[in-house]
Amino acid sequence: MIQQQGLSLKQAGGNAECKPDVRLLTDMEPQKADILIVTVKSYHVESIIPYIKTLFTNTRSVLFIQNGMTHIQYLPQLQDHSIYLGVVEHGAMRASDACVSHTGIGRTKVAPYVDGHAGINWEGLKSEAFPFILENDWYAMLSRKLHINSVINPLTALFNVKNGRLLEVPQWTELMRGLSREACNVLRINRMEAWEDLVQVCQNTSKNTSSMLRDLEQGRQTEMDAINGYLVQLAKQDNINVPNHEFVFRAVKGLELLKGRGDRNG
Amino acid sequence: MIQQQGLSLKQAGGNAECKPDVRLLTDMEPQKADILIVTVKSYHVESIIPYIKTLFTNTRSVLFIQNGMTHIQYLPQLQDHSIYLGVVEHGAMRASDACVSHTGIGRTKVAPYVDGHAGINWEGLKSEAFPFILENDWYAMLSRKLHINSVINPLTALFNVKNGRLLEVPQWTELMRGLSREACNVLRINRMEAWEDLVQVCQNTSKNTSSMLRDLEQGRQTEMDAINGYLVQLAKQDNINVPNHEFVFRAVKGLELLKGRGDRNG
Repeated sequence: MIQQQGLSLKQAGGNAECKPDVRLLTDMEPQKADILIVTVKSYHVESIIPYIKTLFTNTRSVLFIQNGMTHIQYLPQLQDHSIYLGVVEHGAMRASDACVSHTGIGRTKVAPYVDGHAGINWEGLKSEAFPFILENDWYAMLSRKLHINSVINPLTALFNVKNGRLLEVPQWTELMRGLSREACNVLRINRMEAWEDLVQVCQNTSKNTSSMLRDLEQGRQTEMDAINGYLVQLAKQDNINVPNHEFVFRAVKGLELLKGRGDRNG
Repeated sequence: MIQQQGLSLKQAGGNAECKPDVRLLTDMEPQKADILIVTVKSYHVESIIPYIKTLFTNTRSVLFIQNGMTHIQYLPQLQDHSIYLGVVEHGAMRASDACVSHTGIGRTKVAPYVDGHAGINWEGLKSEAFPFILENDWYAMLSRKLHINSVINPLTALFNVKNGRLLEVPQWTELMRGLSREACNVLRINRMEAWEDLVQVCQNTSKNTSSMLRDLEQGRQTEMDAINGYLVQLAKQDNINVPNHEFVFRAVKGLELLKGRGDRNG
């Protein structure tokens, strides 16, 4: 569809269209590019790695934009590349198979995976509607996002509500507190700062449907493994109690199983 | 409606009708009866007690049929009555405001609240379609039912599924295990027996919609306080960890708040 119709972008500043040269990985010739940006879901990163090694040997810089941290384990396989990690704060939704709707301008944060990278002048690439910020601590950057995702995503998916509801229902805000506290223990980040950050994001995205709820609604696999599943694994290694994350992990994985089978009601 | 139309009963063995003399408590004269059967929701027992004391001074036997155990605390106020506690295993649904549908024959278990009661010959009252069983340990009887309700009710309410689904989705069966284990610790009942009992009931009622899910669907108050709320309180007194019960308590109380407001979707 994209090959035939091109891609279109709906945004406040005016719509845009382009006709990108899209190919399946299996149909692709080796490429040389300024940068390779990998935006597959975290659970697909592992299967992409061999293609990067063979098709992009001459492309030095690779930017990985995924939720959670489970994909980090595969990056050491890419010894010959300069790796960046990124998180995106734009509001965006797939309006149809060949159309993306840009619903809110946000920052794209980028951090080098190991020190000493050069190559991409991120600050030079930014525009008003598409700002880049170069971070120096990828772990802090990803763990901050992981903490937020691990609270907002499963609760909105479980209760079938938009993000803002979690702050309107006091009992659910208590559940946010429990999940946040546990995530901070596991990720070893400051509880108070993390909580303020979380509330801020929840307010800013109050009208949004979380990606996890959207995945469930559409019968797709969620990113539960990379988000709460990752925290549960890490907690087990470090002997930290995370009963709330264990609960939401099992609850949402069960919903995923049922909705993936097409049984949406009862 | 019941005064005008009478009550009707739908059941496999043939339908039945009756014209009971129904009154509001506030319109009632003092009564003398063989037995008073109290079937209000557990959270209404407290407000009923003064009426029992004034309207039913000459009625010796009172049978309380409620879920959970929060109503037990009010029973010592009824010093002049012989009190029985009961649990009902019939399948029944309110088909309309004046019609009850009897969907499955079950046992009614009755146990004296304190020893030395006489008065009612329960065994003599039973029929094939309405068996009574006299138990001697009310605590064992109610805690067995509380354990089962505290697992099946909140999970079915949360996931919006019929009882049987919980055994079909392995991740949810794991959540059942966690809730069951905690409830057994708090109620000090045998874990293995309780688990077998729970699975049996879940299988027997696999096509049923739990009362808690039905309460939520109809925007009514649930019995969360008397069931999981009671366990959470008891656990706090005894310093026992019940993170799974805390989670479902907050989760379902939040749903109750939202659905009670009439916001059924998002």
